[in-house]
Amino acid sequence: MLKINEQRLLNRINQLGEIGIDENGARTRAAASDTEKAGRDQVVAWMKEAGLRVAVDYIGNIFGIWETESNKHEAPIMMGSHIDTVINAGKYDGCYGVLAGLEVIQSLQEQQIVTKCPLVVGAFTNEEGIRYSPDMMGSLVYAGGLDVKEALAIVGVDGTILGEELKRIGYEGTEEPGFIKPRAYIELHIEQGPILDVEGISIGAVENLQGISWQRIEIKGVANHAGTTPTNMRVDAGLAAAKVITFMRDRCNQSGGTTVATTGTIAFEPNAINVIPSKAVFTVDVRNPNEERLIAEEQALAAYLKELEATDKVQISTEQLVRFQPVQFDETIVSMVEQVANEMHLSNRRMTSGAGQDAQMMARICPSAMIFVPSVNGISHNPKEYTKDEDIFAGANVFINVIKNLAQ
Amino acid sequence: MLKINEQRLLNRINQLGEIGIDENGARTRAAASDTEKAGRDQVVAWMKEAGLRVAVDYIGNIFGIWETESNKHEAPIMMGSHIDTVINAGKYDGCYGVLAGLEVIQSLQEQQIVTKCPLVVGAFTNEEGIRYSPDMMGSLVYAGGLDVKEALAIVGVDGTILGEELKRIGYEGTEEPGFIKPRAYIELHIEQGPILDVEGISIGAVENLQGISWQRIEIKGVANHAGTTPTNMRVDAGLAAAKVITFMRDRCNQSGGTTVATTGTIAFEPNAINVIPSKAVFTVDVRNPNEERLIAEEQALAAYLKELEATDKVQISTEQLVRFQPVQFDETIVSMVEQVANEMHLSNRRMTSGAGQDAQMMARICPSAMIFVPSVNGISHNPKEYTKDEDIFAGANVFINVIKNLAQ
Repeated sequence: MLKINEQRLLNRINQLGEIGIDENGARTRAAASDTEKAGRDQVVAWMKEAGLRVAVDYIGNIFGIWETESNKHEAPIMMGSHIDTVINAGKYDGCYGVLAGLEVIQSLQEQQIVTKCPLVVGAFTNEEGIRYSPDMMGSLVYAGGLDVKEALAIVGVDGTILGEELKRIGYEGTEEPGFIKPRAYIELHIEQGPILDVEGISIGAVENLQGISWQRIEIKGVANHAGTTPTNMRVDAGLAAAKVITFMRDRCNQSGGTTVATTGTIAFEPNAINVIPSKAVFTVDVRNPNEERLIAEEQALAAYLKELEATDKVQISTEQLVRFQPVQFDETIVSMVEQVANEMHLSNRRMTSGAGQDAQMMARICPSAMIFVPSVNGISHNPKEYTKDEDIFAGANVFINVIKNLAQ
Repeated sequence: MLKINEQRLLNRINQLGEIGIDENGARTRAAASDTEKAGRDQVVAWMKEAGLRVAVDYIGNIFGIWETESNKHEAPIMMGSHIDTVINAGKYDGCYGVLAGLEVIQSLQEQQIVTKCPLVVGAFTNEEGIRYSPDMMGSLVYAGGLDVKEALAIVGVDGTILGEELKRIGYEGTEEPGFIKPRAYIELHIEQGPILDVEGISIGAVENLQGISWQRIEIKGVANHAGTTPTNMRVDAGLAAAKVITFMRDRCNQSGGTTVATTGTIAFEPNAINVIPSKAVFTVDVRNPNEERLIAEEQALAAYLKELEATDKVQISTEQLVRFQPVQFDETIVSMVEQVANEMHLSNRRMTSGAGQDAQMMARICPSAMIFVPSVNGISHNPKEYTKDEDIFAGANVFINVIKNLAQ
């Protein structure tokens, strides 16, 4: 089995991780910011060092292309992820996939293995979406899901325009998004969840990605005095919200572990200790890897809200904020990941990606899949984000063998 | 049966209600503010018009005293309430009790009924507590529950000092709080709740006042990704908070209508749609007219929080914000209210005051009770606060006869 240069990969993860650290020690590389430019420059420098041709598209996606005279007419295999970060981020999320992709190419070169098709490593613009919404924007545009002109005109949370910022940092590229039509896309990523860590498993063969449904729910009750209003005369919007939260957890418990639901935000009005809430506004994030099941959860929630209107006399309105269908990854690639992990005697399991990923966008245009490695305690989007070196190496070593197999 | 001058009372309620209305039409007379000074001046002018001796104590409580040569050595009967308001208030809360007390005296005078003891009508400082905390401060100081020097030094939400503001508006009085030792205290008040209105009853003979327990509860969970964290690995502070809210409602439902509980405020951290809450901070307001029952509710809540720490793996801390024991009013006066209402063929019922009142403080130093009249739809602390004229009259007519009976 092939191996990558483990120390070089680790050094690059650490080196890229040093870029964008502020005076308080917090690492932040928001899309198209000065710190992210510095990260891009470093990655481009490494790509050139490896002899790759570097191309940038209109939305700022960077591609390092390794092609030879003999294979350049074949559709390439693409690897990739992103190097933008959330605020106060860890150093693995996204960067691991980009740098491991580069490492795969460089190790193959050094071991004088010439693939039958070109290999490409991509770093997609604005995966995190903290400055410009939506997230996973670069891969979404690349896959044709969002018009590039529209994307470039998006105004950020800081009032800047993405297109202007990309130009300013020198990454408004010259290629049409989608200009490379890959035969396959594979993304190596940290799990960002606890499953592999808790189960002590090294490799996740990611077979699908959960569908996501976000709703904002507004419940109207009647503000009344907390002391003088008898229980049976209350129309308590806050109580109704609490019932929805516990209802959704019951649904999760009954789903055999497939549904997850979260209420992450909530606000009461008037929000006074001794006034019954006249309004509760909160969000419900519900996910399931199966579209029928996800629809069933949405319908169960809707039915429960109707029931609450009757039992609790409240008025309820909902707004769909986000809706992504589940993504099924390519069975051939997923099996190949399992097979390689088995050959390398690495413990492995099939799993679902709970988070959104660039791979879900690329799956629209080519067979795609992901490889996960453990996140210690499932922590991500946090400076404490950590994956053990041995797992970093295992993932990248599975990666290079999967790519070699697919490219032959 | 005696009757008050109904039209004069109504005119005064309306006239006092015009004082403190701002450019937006909102009525606000915060304690010791310019608008409240204008209200005080008007009430003092009416007291003087009725030939009362006006005395003001150190904390700014105003007393209109009607005494004669023959009864001035007897302990007086005191009536009263307050004329300060919440922000954007109605015109009845407090004012009704003060102006009806004045009306009782003036009507007795005009009907040449001389009581065996002096009659006093008091307007207590800062009942609402919106500018200076705690609320019911004037009566609390008067009853010896708070040192007057301490009270005068209290800094308001606007940075002012109560004592300085009272001086500025000319109501830093010269009498020691408690200087009048009443033989009884009776307060006429709007219900500020829906019971009398819903049941179509004119008169509430208020036999007790609920004990109040306010706690702030902080639940600590673990912030984790809403997509990647399996249900069984979550430590969800928001879910635990929702369980507490529904638990308290269950307690209320099991209490036979005696316990009321409210969660009026809540906040999650980090309050992001796709992050499991790491913290939930919320309040629980629980009330019961029986101290043992109130303690039982507090203990049930504490036991449930302990249980949640075990089942949900969260960490919970609580802080007591407010704790008042229930107040039992004087049975003789309460019976007298019932008797008078019956004699006047007015529908009546015994009831509990759900709100805090000056009468609960006065109950510390003399036999006390309250009379309630209906609040349409239970609305109070709101410009929509409304009591029908016929109920305003009925309450004041019961009041004058109760006072006459007690003073003979």
